Amino acid sequence: MIPNDSMAPVANVRLILESGNRIALTHFLDSLAASEVVYLMGRLSKKERQQLMTLLHPEDAANVIDELPDIMAADIIEDMSSGEAAAIINELMSDDRADLIRELDRRDVEAILVEMDPSEAANARQLINYDNDTAGGLMITEFFCYDELTTINEVVKDFRKNAEEYKYYPVRYIYIVSKEGRFVGVLQMQDLLLSNPEQALSEIVVKNVMAVNVNAPLEEISALFDNYDFFGLPVLDDHSKLIGVLQRQSVVEAVNEQETFEHLETQGIVGGDEFRASPVLQRSKRRLSWLSVNILLNIIAASVIAFYQDTLQAVIALAVFLPIISDMSGCSGNQAVAVSMRELSLGIVRPTEVIRVWLQEISVGLINGLVLGLLIGIAAYLWKGNIYLGLVVGGALAVNTVVAVSLGGTIPLILKKFNIDPALASGPILTTVTDMFGFFLALSFASLTLSNLGGV
Amino acid sequence: MIPNDSMAPVANVRLILESGNRIALTHFLDSLAASEVVYLMGRLSKKERQQLMTLLHPEDAANVIDELPDIMAADIIEDMSSGEAAAIINELMSDDRADLIRELDRRDVEAILVEMDPSEAANARQLINYDNDTAGGLMITEFFCYDELTTINEVVKDFRKNAEEYKYYPVRYIYIVSKEGRFVGVLQMQDLLLSNPEQALSEIVVKNVMAVNVNAPLEEISALFDNYDFFGLPVLDDHSKLIGVLQRQSVVEAVNEQETFEHLETQGIVGGDEFRASPVLQRSKRRLSWLSVNILLNIIAASVIAFYQDTLQAVIALAVFLPIISDMSGCSGNQAVAVSMRELSLGIVRPTEVIRVWLQEISVGLINGLVLGLLIGIAAYLWKGNIYLGLVVGGALAVNTVVAVSLGGTIPLILKKFNIDPALASGPILTTVTDMFGFFLALSFASLTLSNLGGV
Repeated sequence: MIPNDSMAPVANVRLILESGNRIALTHFLDSLAASEVVYLMGRLSKKERQQLMTLLHPEDAANVIDELPDIMAADIIEDMSSGEAAAIINELMSDDRADLIRELDRRDVEAILVEMDPSEAANARQLINYDNDTAGGLMITEFFCYDELTTINEVVKDFRKNAEEYKYYPVRYIYIVSKEGRFVGVLQMQDLLLSNPEQALSEIVVKNVMAVNVNAPLEEISALFDNYDFFGLPVLDDHSKLIGVLQRQSVVEAVNEQETFEHLETQGIVGGDEFRASPVLQRSKRRLSWLSVNILLNIIAASVIAFYQDTLQAVIALAVFLPIISDMSGCSGNQAVAVSMRELSLGIVRPTEVIRVWLQEISVGLINGLVLGLLIGIAAYLWKGNIYLGLVVGGALAVNTVVAVSLGGTIPLILKKFNIDPALASGPILTTVTDMFGFFLALSFASLTLSNLGGV
Repeated sequence: MIPNDSMAPVANVRLILESGNRIALTHFLDSLAASEVVYLMGRLSKKERQQLMTLLHPEDAANVIDELPDIMAADIIEDMSSGEAAAIINELMSDDRADLIRELDRRDVEAILVEMDPSEAANARQLINYDNDTAGGLMITEFFCYDELTTINEVVKDFRKNAEEYKYYPVRYIYIVSKEGRFVGVLQMQDLLLSNPEQALSEIVVKNVMAVNVNAPLEEISALFDNYDFFGLPVLDDHSKLIGVLQRQSVVEAVNEQETFEHLETQGIVGGDEFRASPVLQRSKRRLSWLSVNILLNIIAASVIAFYQDTLQAVIALAVFLPIISDMSGCSGNQAVAVSMRELSLGIVRPTEVIRVWLQEISVGLINGLVLGLLIGIAAYLWKGNIYLGLVVGGALAVNTVVAVSLGGTIPLILKKFNIDPALASGPILTTVTDMFGFFLALSFASLTLSNLGGV
């Protein structure tokens, strides 16, 4: 699907833009996979992007915007006139629209909303008030909804009349409400098929269906979808009025995004996505916010070495092994962190079970500490021919590996218990403590047997 | 949803198991969220798990198995008699069943298959032959499928007859095949509603619908679902026979799983999941496979320090800064790795664009290198009151930060280009090179200005 010459679509689109041929452009974009559209838009200059978006019919432009990560889409929309932006935003699905608007500058939002179709604008105004990770922030407002007194025949007539619009409704359930808009129940398409066309929906509606409150958090919603097999879930306001539908797909995507951001955080990319197309200073600043905390922690950890300066002066070979002990303890500890984060997210372990996790981790730590200590001890012995150096270095790494996996396994649980983001904080805390302890072990072991280490 | 006392469900279930009351057990499990079931099963002993599974009706036992991660489910199934296992596996959806069977020991599989319902066993035998991450490995075989000559009336009759079974069919499209089983097209439920009941499906079927070959890889399938809005996609064999349906949900989950495993790999958990409930030796061995490569790379990197032993002996204060330079360069480089991995997976960047990514990364590297170098340089100067120490240490970290982000940004692309797993290899390669270079910079800068560093 990806052409050999990866720049070909970019060159093609530039040619089409020069010719100003809308039909050719629409055709060409239709032929690309979603990932190719994302790639293409990332390659075009600001000016070319604008040209492309304004040349397209708003509906097709909306399709392009829909494929892009929200930050990138917001960048493009902010560069457009509010009229052009409004025409495109009009065409998006309600949930995608709300996501995009949340990313825009507050000032731009007002200018765009006043240019939009009034009913769509009202809808958007309502949706952007909900938190991103709640039922209200994830729901769509395009769904089949009928008064309970409607007959099946009338529904079929309505289907026929609005076939074009309904084609884009993603949830195939039919939601039934009372005259006052209160939620009554649900029907599947085939239920209509199996019933008498003269019957009212109230006669065949399935009642006592599960529904969620508009403020329900993602965690709760996701547990519901895990537990039951439905595609969509009705969303009610505090007065049991049906105001939207949650799709399984939106929930799965929101959970994924959360996990991806968590993983980025463990690598030091804080607060979600970073794209290389963003301004350098902004990227730099966000990365530095994490690095500057780390460098302070590193200085604190390394101060242990300063404290043992004399020992180190006497056994200079140790200086070779200190970074190894620091790095290897970090590796062992981070493995345990990764397993704990995974088990936390699967619900296999709970934040309170620190002791149990620690007991399960310590046995792995003992075995791996022994193996790694032996390896590094033998390397040290072979290098300097001094068995004491091997014992000091190997012993320090062995003990510190046990410490590292014990901490790595339990720190995420403890942080979670205290409501601190474990993805963000586990790594720095772990490496600071294991560095300090590793340096202390190696240098204090050495100072204990200093007379046997002379001259290495 | 999670009770305050996290052990309460475990105690409850033990009480019910003692009483042997199937109805109470089924009721109790129904009341739990999926994550609570996973948690509960992880807490029970091997024996208790068996008791629980055999006490349940096979259909309910299948629901429990369905909630568990595949490895855990396979563990439980392998401990059961093949008859009991077969009864449970009979009840699973075709795709979940195939996933589970793939995790089982080859010998167990045969014993279980012969005990299963013959048609279900034949179905399973076919599905487990497909690779996990292909259309065949992800598709389900429970879907609505009718001969094109069937009339709408006959379909409605069939719906009525099989309502109970069809309730569990997850895809709401109706697939139409020719007399020979060749795929013809698709219908939505409401299409039936809008047509004359005497019409044959062939008269209203939507033809020229997209379909995938049974061997299509996940990457290709996922691009299709990204690009189009369908819930399900027909899967054809090489003779255009319809053999299954791919659900969007299965594809999304498979992509997630791949991403999660990739993230685990970056933290040194190789080959996918690790659960603490697995045998210690197995966990230890898998973690060591990664650690032992790392320790070798670490020794190689640290050998640079050994080479400059005399310089270090003269400027022992440097020993404090070597681990800091190593760790901070690793942090900066890993941020760039994370952004590249993310952009690769989103398709924003391609493996060939090494130069472009490098140019985008180097500016961030320069700014962050300057800031971090300044910070550590000032710290060094304040500590020892020697401006040259500050310059050496700060300069080394500044230059090495630029190197680290340059490498971190580009290594994943280069590895990907050569078909080496970037999640697994980027980190170790990065830290080895940046350690070596960082040590070299600090120590060679120091040896150049050794006379000015006397006594620190």
